[in-house]
Amino acid sequence: MSLPEAKLYRLTATEVIARLKSGDFKVETYVRSLLSRIEEREPIVKAWAYYDPSHIIDQARRLDNTPREERGPLHGIPIGIKDVIYTQDMPTRHNSPIYDSSEPHLDAATVSILRRAGAIIFGKTATAAFAAVGDGPATRNPHDPERTPGGSSSGSGAAVADMHVPLALGTQTGGSVIRPASFNGIFGMKPTWGAISTDGQKIFSPIFDTVGVFARSADDLQLLADVFRLTGDSTTIPFQIEGSRFAVLKTVHWKQAEQDTVIAMETIARLLRLHGATVEEVELPPDFENLHLWHKQTINTDGAVSFYREYTIAKELLPEMLVRYVEKEQGYSNSDKLSAMDNIARLRPRIDDILRGYTAAITPSTRGAAPFGFKTGSPIFNSLWTALHTPVINFPGFASSNGLPIGLSLVSARYTDQRLLKVAKEVEKLLQSHGGWESKL
Amino acid sequence: MSLPEAKLYRLTATEVIARLKSGDFKVETYVRSLLSRIEEREPIVKAWAYYDPSHIIDQARRLDNTPREERGPLHGIPIGIKDVIYTQDMPTRHNSPIYDSSEPHLDAATVSILRRAGAIIFGKTATAAFAAVGDGPATRNPHDPERTPGGSSSGSGAAVADMHVPLALGTQTGGSVIRPASFNGIFGMKPTWGAISTDGQKIFSPIFDTVGVFARSADDLQLLADVFRLTGDSTTIPFQIEGSRFAVLKTVHWKQAEQDTVIAMETIARLLRLHGATVEEVELPPDFENLHLWHKQTINTDGAVSFYREYTIAKELLPEMLVRYVEKEQGYSNSDKLSAMDNIARLRPRIDDILRGYTAAITPSTRGAAPFGFKTGSPIFNSLWTALHTPVINFPGFASSNGLPIGLSLVSARYTDQRLLKVAKEVEKLLQSHGGWESKL
Repeated sequence: MSLPEAKLYRLTATEVIARLKSGDFKVETYVRSLLSRIEEREPIVKAWAYYDPSHIIDQARRLDNTPREERGPLHGIPIGIKDVIYTQDMPTRHNSPIYDSSEPHLDAATVSILRRAGAIIFGKTATAAFAAVGDGPATRNPHDPERTPGGSSSGSGAAVADMHVPLALGTQTGGSVIRPASFNGIFGMKPTWGAISTDGQKIFSPIFDTVGVFARSADDLQLLADVFRLTGDSTTIPFQIEGSRFAVLKTVHWKQAEQDTVIAMETIARLLRLHGATVEEVELPPDFENLHLWHKQTINTDGAVSFYREYTIAKELLPEMLVRYVEKEQGYSNSDKLSAMDNIARLRPRIDDILRGYTAAITPSTRGAAPFGFKTGSPIFNSLWTALHTPVINFPGFASSNGLPIGLSLVSARYTDQRLLKVAKEVEKLLQSHGGWESKL
Repeated sequence: MSLPEAKLYRLTATEVIARLKSGDFKVETYVRSLLSRIEEREPIVKAWAYYDPSHIIDQARRLDNTPREERGPLHGIPIGIKDVIYTQDMPTRHNSPIYDSSEPHLDAATVSILRRAGAIIFGKTATAAFAAVGDGPATRNPHDPERTPGGSSSGSGAAVADMHVPLALGTQTGGSVIRPASFNGIFGMKPTWGAISTDGQKIFSPIFDTVGVFARSADDLQLLADVFRLTGDSTTIPFQIEGSRFAVLKTVHWKQAEQDTVIAMETIARLLRLHGATVEEVELPPDFENLHLWHKQTINTDGAVSFYREYTIAKELLPEMLVRYVEKEQGYSNSDKLSAMDNIARLRPRIDDILRGYTAAITPSTRGAAPFGFKTGSPIFNSLWTALHTPVINFPGFASSNGLPIGLSLVSARYTDQRLLKVAKEVEKLLQSHGGWESKL
């Protein structure tokens, strides 16, 4: 791709890595292009909770001066960090006035690993308060500023879609990575629970909290999967759509899918069949129908523990929903919580058994396109997978009737993350060659 | 109790609270007594990774100047914090040269809650590296400096036993609270997993890591249980030994119990029966026999994720065992890990069902008394309860043949923490009235 320097922000991370290697431009030149893009777009998109251009330029210059043999696999790649993940050189405010002046001198495990790999820790992306509430931050959907970018990783999703950065980190306890990925028309990955360390990020639910990643291509997801050492592909055989076997999982929530999502699900099934895949509609056993309730009971009771600290500091500054968690006003008891946790745990090996019969399962990422306003949307199609600990990749490529992006989820058994990525790459190609939705940004 | 000011360090937290309320002495006077005790004993015991007398005195003076109506439930009570738990005004070094200059400006949730309750965050207690390895820090058992205080919460156990502080926080992923409590002849409590937030402490295994507390009396444990909002007692009826029903759980590891522990188990059964309790030996079903292996497989594979950050920073400074985790040299696969996690999860509701048939179960805390040297001892009698997420309280009161302390564990179903504390208080009285082991310190 031949781009003027001012347009370098359009490149994916994979493209930037190749061009930095061949000496086409400097890291500093590249980040200046991103900063110009942000300067132009940030007043509309509001993706950032914090970024400091001079600190970014400093990091870029230091990397430009790093000898080639000392450069890491993400040399010069800027990454946005959701503002519930600690960064030793920036504030972490959780979108809460309680943490207005909070600057933990501490890198989360993910941030530390990214720095060692040569990434530029670009800034903090806007989040719904504590990555826990349904009201988003000020961030707007770059495809239509009247709409939500989804959440809680709102800024990460919008910043990547709007080409402020090629990559970003998010977190998911319900649907906080997959939903904004779908609404913003980008790739998002929630790996297997426990596969990436959550050390150094705010805890909401210890049994569900998962680090997630955003990118504009499946190859870019791969970069982060490798740096974070995701596993789960014992074969080296390249994956092919032809001869593969996909499950279509409409789930018990299917009646909540809007027409746009229904059409996207039909489209992918048709395309996969056209290219030689078997596609079967699969119904989950009745035990799986309560997953959404059990997930809710668990996060409610976990929230009572996780936000008790903030409640003791300044109850009046805590979002009302979190106050209700702490005051246990939802009426869920410890015994409800234990049943919920134990029931979910029982279903994990069972979903693995079901999913192992397929190349991957395809299921909605969101009810439909991003809604108007500041509510981040429903996690109804996400929370069951978060509860079940399986890897999920949102792939974009579908359009709603009014031209907004719609994504779908690829799901596979726990610890098959790398294999699922291979599937995502082929699905990406399939949609590109069939003229799927493309960003107008 | 009438003590000269210089001996105030001998008081329990409960006693200190009562005497501060009645104005017998100032917080400053009390902490000066502790500081003198430490000055005398620390060269032998080496319980502390960090403490700053002037910062302690500052906190004490500020508390002395706090109007009575603004004082919290732990007003003036000094607490030692294990050095894997973040404190915004002190370093947190994890007993690792990698973190020599690490000062996260961040309080863990527990530390923040304690501060709001009026506690004095006294200093950081010595820990085995990352609360993860079997080699202890320099800390010595105050009852015999040739011996280990246990670990990994070595400093917390020794500091409370040696009366440097009345209370301390620890963490347990295997046996890191209950073992040092037993070896030091004090109370230790590992609450139900998830009942206290682990936010702001180093993660080893997200599914096992639990905050624990140390004290010299069950009443003192109660203070922390209340401040941390532990639940699990729906009755207000005081618990009585008479008419209660105890299970004796020797477990499949019983052959590893030394003679001193065998005698302690016999003694408590005899005493309980003498006071009108029913005591039944209970054998766990065969499925429970693999818990120790499943626990090991889980922490090994979790360790590969949790210490990957440090591995990328300075592999050569990481303890060899953690390098082996990261390099996956133990031969445990993701599939082993999933089976282990799923199998353990399946047993949690089953152990609850068994334990609900009894007032509490009694089981060994340690193989025997503290061994010589710097290895912190075996977690063989602890890791199954950590895996099963049940609350455990170590109660002291037994002596080994050579006069060292031996403790035993009280165990009950998940989320019956407050009830278990009531049981511990009665067991404590029982042992006191029968002339159990008493500290010579």
